Order: sequence, then C-alpha cells, then structure tokens
Amino acid sequence: MRIVLLGTGNLATQLGLALLAKNAEVVQVYGRNLSGTATLANLMGCPWTTDKSQIIQDAELYILAVTEEAIPLILRDAPIRNHLLVHTSGSVQMDILAAFSDNFGVFYPLQTLSAHKTVDFSQVPICVEANNGKNLEKLSLLAHTISEQVFTVNSVQRRELHLAAVFVCNFVNHLYTIGEKLLQEQQLDFRLLKPLILETANKAMAFSPATVQTGPAIRGNQNILDLHLKMLEQHPKWQKIYELISLDIQHFHS
Amino acid sequence: MRIVLLGTGNLATQLGLALLAKNAEVVQVYGRNLSGTATLANLMGCPWTTDKSQIIQDAELYILAVTEEAIPLILRDAPIRNHLLVHTSGSVQMDILAAFSDNFGVFYPLQTLSAHKTVDFSQVPICVEANNGKNLEKLSLLAHTISEQVFTVNSVQRRELHLAAVFVCNFVNHLYTIGEKLLQEQQLDFRLLKPLILETANKAMAFSPATVQTGPAIRGNQNILDLHLKMLEQHPKWQKIYELISLDIQHFHS
Repeated sequence: MRIVLLGTGNLATQLGLALLAKNAEVVQVYGRNLSGTATLANLMGCPWTTDKSQIIQDAELYILAVTEEAIPLILRDAPIRNHLLVHTSGSVQMDILAAFSDNFGVFYPLQTLSAHKTVDFSQVPICVEANNGKNLEKLSLLAHTISEQVFTVNSVQRRELHLAAVFVCNFVNHLYTIGEKLLQEQQLDFRLLKPLILETANKAMAFSPATVQTGPAIRGNQNILDLHLKMLEQHPKWQKIYELISLDIQHFHS
Repeated sequence: MRIVLLGTGNLATQLGLALLAKNAEVVQVYGRNLSGTATLANLMGCPWTTDKSQIIQDAELYILAVTEEAIPLILRDAPIRNHLLVHTSGSVQMDILAAFSDNFGVFYPLQTLSAHKTVDFSQVPICVEANNGKNLEKLSLLAHTISEQVFTVNSVQRRELHLAAVFVCNFVNHLYTIGEKLLQEQQLDFRLLKPLILETANKAMAFSPATVQTGPAIRGNQNILDLHLKMLEQHPKWQKIYELISLDIQHFHS
C-alpha cells in the first residue's frame, strides 16, 4: 500500500516509523514547515513537499496526522481525489472527510506521544473506522501490521475514548506534576513517589480501579482531609482540586 | 530485634510478611479484632492477643500499623514502657508518641497497600524518623533489611509526602475510575486505556512530568475543551473536575 503522510509532528513521525519498520511503503511526506518536513522525509527515506499541489495523486492511502484544527486547512485544495483518506484524531467525526474523498476513515492510535520517547506501537490500541466495509478491511489490515490491538470504534465511541484518555493520561500527568512541585517545596526528591506511581498504574492493569480505591477520602478520614486542605492554603487552585476530587471519591463510593 | 506488631490491617500484614521474609523476629501480634489478629499471627507463626494488658513487655520494637485515628486508642494503657515505639503513618507527627515512650520514631512505607495484591517491599521507599540518633540508626538498619530505598524524613516533610501521595495515587486512581465509567457508558472495554495508563506512568519514571504534559488543555485547543465539557453535562461533578484541572494545566504552563 503506497502511503502519503500528511503532517510532520510527533504522531506523523512515530506512526511513520512504525509503518516503515513493517515495510510499509511511505511514498511522500507533506508538511507545512520546511525543515520539519525534510527531517521526517529523511527518516522515512522518501520524497517530500511543502507545496500542496505537489502531493502525489496516485497513492492508495493518505494519512492525515495533524491537530484537529489543522485538518480542514490541510485538506482544502489538496489533490487527494477519491483515494482512501484517514485522519488520526480522537475527537473529530469521520464524516468531515466526506467533503474531500468518497473513500475515508479514521486511524486513531490511543497513546500519548511525545518527541522525548519512542513508543512501542505493537502495544498501542489502534481504533479504526471507515465509510464502508472494504475500506474498513484495508485499515484493519494495515493496523494489524503495526499493532496487536486493533479495535473497530465508531465516531461517538472514539470521542468518548478521547475524553476518558484526557482523564487517565493528561490529567493524571498533571497530578504527577502537582506531586512533584509539592515535594520540591520540602526539598524532597520526586523519585520518592515513583514506586507509588508505578504501583498505582500496575494495579489498574489487574483490577477495576473502582474496587481498589485507597486514601483518606474513601476512608472518611476528616482529620487528614482538613490537614491537607490547610496545607494547600498557599495553592488555592490545588486546594480546590483536592476538595472536589475527595468529595467525588466519597460520593462515588457512597 | 524482637518485634511486636500492633495492628492487623493491610499494612501490618504486608509489613509483617516482608519482615518475616528477612528473618526478623516478630514475637507477637496485638489487634482488636479476634479473627483478624489470629489470622495475621498465624501467618507470622507467633502468639497473639486482643488483650492490651497481655502485650509482651520486653520486645525491642513496637510497630503500630493502624489508621491515624486508632493510634491514641491503641496506645492508651498499652504496656510499652520505654521500648522503641514507632508508628507507620504519613500525616501523624512523630512527637505524639512522646507521651507513651522515651524512645520513639516513625517507620513510614510510602506505598499503596491493599488486600488484593502483595507488594514487593524491596522497592518501597521507607521513610524513617526517630527521637534520637541511636533510635534512627536502629530503624534505618531494619528498613534496609526489607527495602533498597530508605530515607530519613522529618515530620513536616513526611506529611508533605503523604499529601503528594494522595494526588499521585489516590486521586490518580479516581481518574482511572472516571475513565473506566465513561467507557462503560459507550460499551467500551477498559483495557483500551491500559497501555495509555502504563505509558503515562512510565514516562514519569524518566522525565519530569511538567515537561511531558500533553493534551487539549496545554495545546489550548478550545474546540475540544468545549466538546468535552458538553459531553460531561450528565456528570456535573466530573465536568467541574475537567474544567478545574484543564484551567490549572493552562495556568501552570503559561
């Protein structure tokens, strides 16, 4: 399958590398930023362009790996014709692609990607969706070449997945950040918290999180809750987050 | 070192087993609940009592592994004399033990413990504190027999650690719970989120969390934030949590 990658960010890069490692044929990289586009094309060992009119017109799959807002900007006037076009976004409905091709779908890897760290794609769930069975089969086959976990997920489910991912990844990482900052204020090393962070995540691999909740809120230990709220007086935003989540733990488990 | 365990919960059990595995001499278990006390003593292969007056008076270390609120209840009229007495709590100041012995300290394992899962104590940070250098050395030595990570931490630092632990463990687990419930509403399996949960935790092992924050809030993607808030209309408490954490991410990183 001859693939054109549209986009040059973390997702385009890591997805491109995962495809390349499985001998997928990435025939071109298109991007808006010259040096980013050249860099990724160099990694892929393929031609590149920053001129939309120069996008190869006879590829079999066009993977749009850009932020939600950039999707319509990239697609406007792009010569995709009726070849299979997919986006890679959690919260964008598949149907917005109908204006640009008769063959379209979604190829959504559910993972957090950053430039710092290469992800093992074989364990990344890939959620596929397509406008018909034939296209769905093509996307599933491609997804299976790079991942052991491929799921057919519709647009409504996918946006729910994305929302849940914000809670368990983006918000969780921010709570790690708060923990790190609180420790710094007492000259304590963040590594003290690392075994706890790992154990908490590992527990969620084996048990329903609702069944293994611990801590002062679920124990109803008001003395500790009051002490912690008092300790957070210098951080009113964190105090509010502490209060809200503690109340929600108590409400959820009551 | 002849040790008496006061308490029979998850911490008493897992700490007792970790000590036993290193050939520590647990000579008695005291608890208030007969069957719980007998069960733990059976695991330890030692005598037990639920009668405070029968607590062995010539042990070298008394480990109080009970909830914060139970500490004064257990210690009142307990015949500890002036042997070394420690509690195991994150948020209780060491000095409250001064009323019960001239030799006291804290032995605080920073980990989440539940009946479901045995923890590898060798990787659990143990925070020790004592009323004098000799007692601190005793506790450090004991801690080193069961863990590779032993830290001397004072009471002010320890309560900050406990507060940070609530954020990175208890609150994180509640966010996992919210993610699980959101998926259930769309008939999606929680295992879809597991690679993301693990990757997020693993990333915190290698990087400062503040430097690897991702997601719509830090990207300033208002369309997605608005969509997510709308999707959470049926869950006003989760909507409020979403809003507060998103705002704090933007505030923190601005």
